[in-house]
Amino acid sequence: MTDDGCVFCSIVRGRTDASVVHEDESVLAFMDLRPVNPGHLLVVPKAHASGLEDLQPDVGVQVWKVAHRLGRAMRRSGLRCEGVNLLLADGEAAFQEVFHVHLHVIPRFAGDPFRIRSDWRVHQREQLDVSAAAVRSGLAALGGAPQA
Amino acid sequence: MTDDGCVFCSIVRGRTDASVVHEDESVLAFMDLRPVNPGHLLVVPKAHASGLEDLQPDVGVQVWKVAHRLGRAMRRSGLRCEGVNLLLADGEAAFQEVFHVHLHVIPRFAGDPFRIRSDWRVHQREQLDVSAAAVRSGLAALGGAPQA
Repeated sequence: MTDDGCVFCSIVRGRTDASVVHEDESVLAFMDLRPVNPGHLLVVPKAHASGLEDLQPDVGVQVWKVAHRLGRAMRRSGLRCEGVNLLLADGEAAFQEVFHVHLHVIPRFAGDPFRIRSDWRVHQREQLDVSAAAVRSGLAALGGAPQA
Repeated sequence: MTDDGCVFCSIVRGRTDASVVHEDESVLAFMDLRPVNPGHLLVVPKAHASGLEDLQPDVGVQVWKVAHRLGRAMRRSGLRCEGVNLLLADGEAAFQEVFHVHLHVIPRFAGDPFRIRSDWRVHQREQLDVSAAAVRSGLAALGGAPQA
C-alpha cells in the first residue's frame, strides 16, 4: 500500500511535512511545494499508485470528488482565483515528476505565470475518425464492461 | 439541459459532427478538433454545465470514470502514447474556451509540441500554511458534509 522511496507516501504516513487541506479514508489533499499560484494543491490517493494504470477506479473517483469540491472551495477561499485548472500527468512524457498519482488543483487569474503552448491547428474529419477508431480499439483491448 | 448556442450541446444532440469514442447515459467523449497529438479527446457531460460550479457531482464522477478508462485505452490504441495528461479548464482565466465542461484526455510522447511553463520556485512552509488555511475556509464556506 505504500512505497518506501515515495515522498507522497511519506506525507500520507505523516513522516514528511505538508500543509493539508483535506483528509478522508482514501484521499489526502495538500499544498504543492512549488505552486503555480498561491493555493495550488494536490489531491493524492493514500494507497500508492504510480499512475492511471494501477489506480483503483473507486479511489480515482474519490480523488476526483475531492478535487471537484476543492476547485469550488478555491473560489470561496479569499485567494486570488478567477479560474481553476485540474491537471493530471500520467508518465514522464506527460511531465509527471513524482510517481504517485496526483491531481493538481490550480487557482488561476489573468496575467499569472502559467502558460500552455502547443500546435492548435484544426485537423480534418478523416484524421479524427482514424484516431477515434484507434481509441475505440484501445477500449476494446481493455475489455470488461464500460463503467456504469 | 441544453444551451442553444453551445457547440458541445449541438454535438450531444447529433446536430454537429464529431468523432465519438464513447457514449453513455450522462457523458459523451469525442475527438478534439485541434488535437495536441492524434488521439486527443474531450469527455463532456451531456447536460449543459458551464464549469465546476454548476456541474452535478454525480455527472462529474462519470466524466472522470470515462476519462480514467480512456486514458488507459489510449495506451492500447496503437496511437503514439508514452504518457497521458488529463486537463480541465474552468473559467476564461484558466484558458477555458468552450463554456461547456470538458475534460481533455491527451496522449503524450517525448518531443511532442505540448509545453507548460510557470514559475516553479519552492515556497516556504509558512506561506503554504496560509494558503491551506484559506482553502479550508473556502471548504467551510461551501457548507454541507464532505463527500463520502
